[in-house]
Amino acid sequence: MTKSDSKRTLRFGLPKGSLQEATIAKMAKAGYNILISSRSYIPYVDDDELELRLIRAQEISRYVEHGYLDCGITGYDWIQENGSRVHEVGEFQFNKATRQTARWVLAVPEDSPIKSPKDLAGKRIATELVNQTRKYLRRHKVKAEVEFSWGATEMKAHELVDAIVDITETGSSLRANKLRIVDTLLSSTPRLIANHEAWKQPWKRQKIERIALLLKGAIDAETKVGLKLNLEQKNLPALLKALPALRNPTIANLSLKGWVAVETIIDEHVVRELIPALKAAGAEGIIEYPLNKVVY
Amino acid sequence: MTKSDSKRTLRFGLPKGSLQEATIAKMAKAGYNILISSRSYIPYVDDDELELRLIRAQEISRYVEHGYLDCGITGYDWIQENGSRVHEVGEFQFNKATRQTARWVLAVPEDSPIKSPKDLAGKRIATELVNQTRKYLRRHKVKAEVEFSWGATEMKAHELVDAIVDITETGSSLRANKLRIVDTLLSSTPRLIANHEAWKQPWKRQKIERIALLLKGAIDAETKVGLKLNLEQKNLPALLKALPALRNPTIANLSLKGWVAVETIIDEHVVRELIPALKAAGAEGIIEYPLNKVVY
Amino acid sequence: MTKSDSKRTLRFGLPKGSLQEATIAKMAKAGYNILISSRSYIPYVDDDELELRLIRAQEISRYVEHGYLDCGITGYDWIQENGSRVHEVGEFQFNKATRQTARWVLAVPEDSPIKSPKDLAGKRIATELVNQTRKYLRRHKVKAEVEFSWGATEMKAHELVDAIVDITETGSSLRANKLRIVDTLLSSTPRLIANHEAWKQPWKRQKIERIALLLKGAIDAETKVGLKLNLEQKNLPALLKALPALRNPTIANLSLKGWVAVETIIDEHVVRELIPALKAAGAEGIIEYPLNKVVY
Amino acid sequence: MTKSDSKRTLRFGLPKGSLQEATIAKMAKAGYNILISSRSYIPYVDDDELELRLIRAQEISRYVEHGYLDCGITGYDWIQENGSRVHEVGEFQFNKATRQTARWVLAVPEDSPIKSPKDLAGKRIATELVNQTRKYLRRHKVKAEVEFSWGATEMKAHELVDAIVDITETGSSLRANKLRIVDTLLSSTPRLIANHEAWKQPWKRQKIERIALLLKGAIDAETKVGLKLNLEQKNLPALLKALPALRNPTIANLSLKGWVAVETIIDEHVVRELIPALKAAGAEGIIEYPLNKVVY
Amino acid sequence: MTKSDSKRTLRFGLPKGSLQEATIAKMAKAGYNILISSRSYIPYVDDDELELRLIRAQEISRYVEHGYLDCGITGYDWIQENGSRVHEVGEFQFNKATRQTARWVLAVPEDSPIKSPKDLAGKRIATELVNQTRKYLRRHKVKAEVEFSWGATEMKAHELVDAIVDITETGSSLRANKLRIVDTLLSSTPRLIANHEAWKQPWKRQKIERIALLLKGAIDAETKVGLKLNLEQKNLPALLKALPALRNPTIANLSLKGWVAVETIIDEHVVRELIPALKAAGAEGIIEYPLNKVVY
Amino acid sequence: MTKSDSKRTLRFGLPKGSLQEATIAKMAKAGYNILISSRSYIPYVDDDELELRLIRAQEISRYVEHGYLDCGITGYDWIQENGSRVHEVGEFQFNKATRQTARWVLAVPEDSPIKSPKDLAGKRIATELVNQTRKYLRRHKVKAEVEFSWGATEMKAHELVDAIVDITETGSSLRANKLRIVDTLLSSTPRLIANHEAWKQPWKRQKIERIALLLKGAIDAETKVGLKLNLEQKNLPALLKALPALRNPTIANLSLKGWVAVETIIDEHVVRELIPALKAAGAEGIIEYPLNKVVY
Repeated sequence: MTKSDSKRTLRFGLPKGSLQEATIAKMAKAGYNILISSRSYIPYVDDDELELRLIRAQEISRYVEHGYLDCGITGYDWIQENGSRVHEVGEFQFNKATRQTARWVLAVPEDSPIKSPKDLAGKRIATELVNQTRKYLRRHKVKAEVEFSWGATEMKAHELVDAIVDITETGSSLRANKLRIVDTLLSSTPRLIANHEAWKQPWKRQKIERIALLLKGAIDAETKVGLKLNLEQKNLPALLKALPALRNPTIANLSLKGWVAVETIIDEHVVRELIPALKAAGAEGIIEYPLNKVVY
Repeated sequence: MTKSDSKRTLRFGLPKGSLQEATIAKMAKAGYNILISSRSYIPYVDDDELELRLIRAQEISRYVEHGYLDCGITGYDWIQENGSRVHEVGEFQFNKATRQTARWVLAVPEDSPIKSPKDLAGKRIATELVNQTRKYLRRHKVKAEVEFSWGATEMKAHELVDAIVDITETGSSLRANKLRIVDTLLSSTPRLIANHEAWKQPWKRQKIERIALLLKGAIDAETKVGLKLNLEQKNLPALLKALPALRNPTIANLSLKGWVAVETIIDEHVVRELIPALKAAGAEGIIEYPLNKVVY
Repeated sequence: MTKSDSKRTLRFGLPKGSLQEATIAKMAKAGYNILISSRSYIPYVDDDELELRLIRAQEISRYVEHGYLDCGITGYDWIQENGSRVHEVGEFQFNKATRQTARWVLAVPEDSPIKSPKDLAGKRIATELVNQTRKYLRRHKVKAEVEFSWGATEMKAHELVDAIVDITETGSSLRANKLRIVDTLLSSTPRLIANHEAWKQPWKRQKIERIALLLKGAIDAETKVGLKLNLEQKNLPALLKALPALRNPTIANLSLKGWVAVETIIDEHVVRELIPALKAAGAEGIIEYPLNKVVY
Repeated sequence: MTKSDSKRTLRFGLPKGSLQEATIAKMAKAGYNILISSRSYIPYVDDDELELRLIRAQEISRYVEHGYLDCGITGYDWIQENGSRVHEVGEFQFNKATRQTARWVLAVPEDSPIKSPKDLAGKRIATELVNQTRKYLRRHKVKAEVEFSWGATEMKAHELVDAIVDITETGSSLRANKLRIVDTLLSSTPRLIANHEAWKQPWKRQKIERIALLLKGAIDAETKVGLKLNLEQKNLPALLKALPALRNPTIANLSLKGWVAVETIIDEHVVRELIPALKAAGAEGIIEYPLNKVVY
Repeated sequence: MTKSDSKRTLRFGLPKGSLQEATIAKMAKAGYNILISSRSYIPYVDDDELELRLIRAQEISRYVEHGYLDCGITGYDWIQENGSRVHEVGEFQFNKATRQTARWVLAVPEDSPIKSPKDLAGKRIATELVNQTRKYLRRHKVKAEVEFSWGATEMKAHELVDAIVDITETGSSLRANKLRIVDTLLSSTPRLIANHEAWKQPWKRQKIERIALLLKGAIDAETKVGLKLNLEQKNLPALLKALPALRNPTIANLSLKGWVAVETIIDEHVVRELIPALKAAGAEGIIEYPLNKVVY
Repeated sequence: MTKSDSKRTLRFGLPKGSLQEATIAKMAKAGYNILISSRSYIPYVDDDELELRLIRAQEISRYVEHGYLDCGITGYDWIQENGSRVHEVGEFQFNKATRQTARWVLAVPEDSPIKSPKDLAGKRIATELVNQTRKYLRRHKVKAEVEFSWGATEMKAHELVDAIVDITETGSSLRANKLRIVDTLLSSTPRLIANHEAWKQPWKRQKIERIALLLKGAIDAETKVGLKLNLEQKNLPALLKALPALRNPTIANLSLKGWVAVETIIDEHVVRELIPALKAAGAEGIIEYPLNKVVY
């Protein structure tokens, strides 16, 4: 039923669940078109050398370590929680909107007397990340009970336990639930990981590196844009000095004498500051355009 | 719970409801990433200087006038209906697809004897825009009863009242309901408005102007595209003369002798006419590419 | 109720159902913005010269042949099944993700004794494509019973009939249902077809050709991307020789002496191989950007 | 994978699609609990002697005739359309709300010149029920073209064809589409049908008859209710004479001297008239209660 | 298109929106089956003497007063707010689950200094019920600004205004929003109202009264159940004395000597107390069964 | 924010997730109307003496044991898995449709060499029920690796592990996935459990017992029905002898001489056999009616 597992096939685990949609979108931008079928648990990809599997993010590192998968994408948090021995190929930032890293934080009700890890002694903590939480308590030489939370962890902090360790990006859900962050245990980003044996095989390693390169190029491109503008040549040196964000631009002469066209790639989040500044510096015909991939 | 209201914070009202999705999409294109949470009525934005509020489009001008909001995006119709005294910073065209402005029209059943505003004397009119409708009647020196419609206004024109004043873009819903447009009371586009006091404060004004600039750049870019093509140099003057839409192009020499590369920004809706014409005029390798922002 | 059918109006049939969303998206890329209203069965389009109708893909060719529609988009399979005499203006590939053509295949259970069309003698076959299936049997001089299937055809192969003729792209649904493909009857892509009389009228023909040109430009652009990179001039000839995919690039001098900027349009699916190769060949600042239309 | 096909198993086809939900609800009321799984096309039923299959209503009579199914529930319309030779066990009325039978009607635009079947000569008719429509034309000795409609048949009557044959219950959808009913071709109710061979086998026949009995009891109960009321004995003869709907009631003495309790089963749709009349006739403590099954 | 408005037709307005689903369910229990079609704004009902219209609850009393509708179901709140002169035929309690009446309350943030209506002087209040709120202020001789709220009124109490007047049943949404109830302005239940002229016409009045009777019977039945139990005769007097809820039961002798069967109708919400008490008192075979209608 | 925790309040945990909807429906039948609000995690119930909490079924026994909840409804499986020391008040059968108990089974691919628990030595097993699975292995003196499965356990049996322990009712999902059941570890039904301390307090114990009584009465009523029929008195003894299911009926004389009315309560699943038998035995006017509660 599945494709034969020849030497020329790479078994690749994609994270099912909250990271799934983002991962498939990023892979498409990298050039790998994936179709999830409700009729088959094996996704289609337009590359015969890849064999995909959709597996929970919490479990991927386990199956990469065991060698069932050659490589996979999962979060740093679950690699650590599972204590999996795998080769980390690359780190990515999936969340373009907030540009914030997911963090596992120790949180308590706003009016809780718990102010530092020391105050956890003898308390009960609910979390999905049991091992990391226990490790944190050992590091702080505190004894407390840690219980596995099957979900809705935030709601438990007010009534069922004394503290929680939960994941957050902007912290707005914790604030809405009247919870206070005491400490950060772990920051986590998506990682591409490989099985150590697979990584030693030249073909698999090259294949994995290529995917990593294209995925990085696609993800970098999400936070960058192309910028073009016209300027009087005499204003160019002042502009470049004033705006270091205009890194290494291409300069071309325009048919209109004394004017040049400037083109460069910049981080999208500086555009909010840069375009008003450029306009103030005499730039005209400012154009921002989107990019698919950026590979330096 | 909310961010502190220091001098360096701008309180910005976004329209909840039919304009909401479009406004958030335009703001993202302008460079402001907004996340709406079902758990909190305060949207997240990746700019610490902004404090967003989601408020009904019908009410935003009221709260900008009262100073609860420094500025906001809402429709011209509701600014007028509320009679709000606010500073209008900019006008936008959100609807890329139809490029048609929303209009509040007086409509009656196809076979109604009402042919002009004069015929409304003594009749009953249902509308959401009560004040503007009354003003219209006064302007035409007609006495008629105006009643507030809580929704499904179109359906009322056939049975419950003699005429309606309702909003339409393409008129197709009115036609489908067998209604005839008698007159247009008001055209309405989205506006960025500011509180008069806020507008006097330099930091707030500069911040508002910057948002207006980027929003305009992003919205302009939706209806424009970049165009590149190759052409024999000898055909260039004739082409430029024949196609004034090719405004102010950049001309570059190609390695192939006697050929030039022409690049420009044009309105997307002329592409339908322009590309066939360019091809007929000998252009080759015509490429159209998308833009994020256009700032002249 | 509908627009008047003057000489300057083209009646255009769009396929309702599985092709509908894709067709409207492609038309938008071509420059024709279409709005489907739940209140009216006549879609809105921002071109007064077009009158759209949404009709089942299975029926469009019939109504184009009869002259009720001037032209329409439908699949090759249903043109053949209906035996419609129409003018075929253009063929398109809608499915960017798989780049695979839909095929109508003869399929049987994995363990069926049927290995070739000859084995169908005396058997029962369920299909939506009754006429083409009968034609196929005649071609192979086999007598078998063909019955119209109202849906869920795959499920019938195991219990209700001996074989099915069904449509597939990647074959993954057939595999998941433990079915084996015996033969392919027909490959099918979307086509733009015109009524023979309409095609003879200059204005209609020109209008149809223009739509075909823009639609092709938009669909071609989906599988192509723009590529820019910087390179030491001395490495350029070797690069161009090694990478024929870099067809006909634009070369420009950079301000950094001895370096050139290379820009070209390439098929997106070769990017996966090309970018790693370019990087290995010394290219820097590799940028891939999206295109709206490509017209050669 | 499926249960063994011993003599003691009855293969029963349920209609997939518009009748599906109603059929499963009626079967549950009859005492057969059915679970549809998205993972398996064979429904679960809490009776080991039944093997269910979900098949399109249009196709069930075909597979009952061929013997693949022992029996099934489908509409009279499709039994006729397929010309299937099957044994009809029972007729049911599924639609409690309207108590109206589905009818296939010949319909035309309100202002069409077609007033009778004779006017169809030389016209084009779209319908899903091609064979029955042709039979109708032959009966009226009219020659017209009948084409298979893949759906949205109503919409075609105004533009694509001259008339349609479509299914309707209350006619409201036809009226909303400005169509006029010219004639009724066929009334259709759900039927339980059996394969002729299966019907000859005693065990299968008894099993089918039992299902028919319980299904009829459950469906009859949907349109009937139990009614109890208290009355002065002296008023009883007058009441029974005046209200023949109170068929065959049970009369019991109450502890309050001179009063009796009256209990009966009546058609629910007469309750609207009956309860006000009973109250007017001096009845007290009128109670209406629901029934699961009614078997006379 | 609509049925002819003969003397024997009653035009009946049903409330669109939040009351719609409940109203249609209650009408079905009363014996009137209503079908809402997305294709037509006139609902179907299986009674030729009724002509239904779906109109916003806020507007129904207006159209009943004007005579466009003969009668309708709407809330007491909107009858008052509109100041409509109509005949009130009956009052109903739709909400079986909470058995609580909807109330319009004055609410403020938990920590607001506003403790009584007097504290509203000079404040701003947002509400959908502008007229009733103004009336309330006049009654308390307080001057305050009342503004119409287009929705999401609760959210405004914290930031946009000083107080709100909003509707609540259990108060749980107000509590979840940290709001405190200061006073109740108005309690509201669904009412059946009639136009004064229609009420004078015998046929219309009788028809309306009949609907009211059946609707009341159906709604009463929702909060009542039938109860049967067996008891030793000697325990009967003590039981009846101890449990007055067992109002007016039917007593029948059982075949088992010395035992009687007791049957009665009781309020469902006392069952929670009654059944344990009955069991304690020696009752056996206690059966509770549902009712469709109860008419005393 | 929450109600005060006086002596007269019982804190009751309801299972969130797959059992949630069923539990709330059963509670409503028992007489406790519960409303879940998306705005508050504390459900509303129309009994001031109850304080509800929605907690995952997996966690409820933990919080009942700790005393945070006085009682709760959860599955026997999770009480065992957590090893919680709680008082079991009652056992229920929620699943009326299948009348089958959920079972945790050891399953392997159909063609796996594993035929008995002994064959698991050295294998890897995935399950959500880790502790019970380890206990099972110890009981069979087998060493195997047990890993926690975060979901989609069935899919793992073919590729990721050697065996799974998963929950099933009818087994149809396992069969559809080509898995074979090797052994059953645990059967599980919903239970009402109480904290040991709470159970010692008379008021809480009485309150819990009352809920248990009503819940049992409501759930029993789901699988029972009332049956009435008329019969010639002379046939009664034979009937009662032949049909022991007609347990302890009420017999009443009818006005028609020689005929009696028989009424009883029976298990619904015997109705399928009983009604045909009754009819064969001469019964007439057989009526089956639904019950709300049955308390013996």
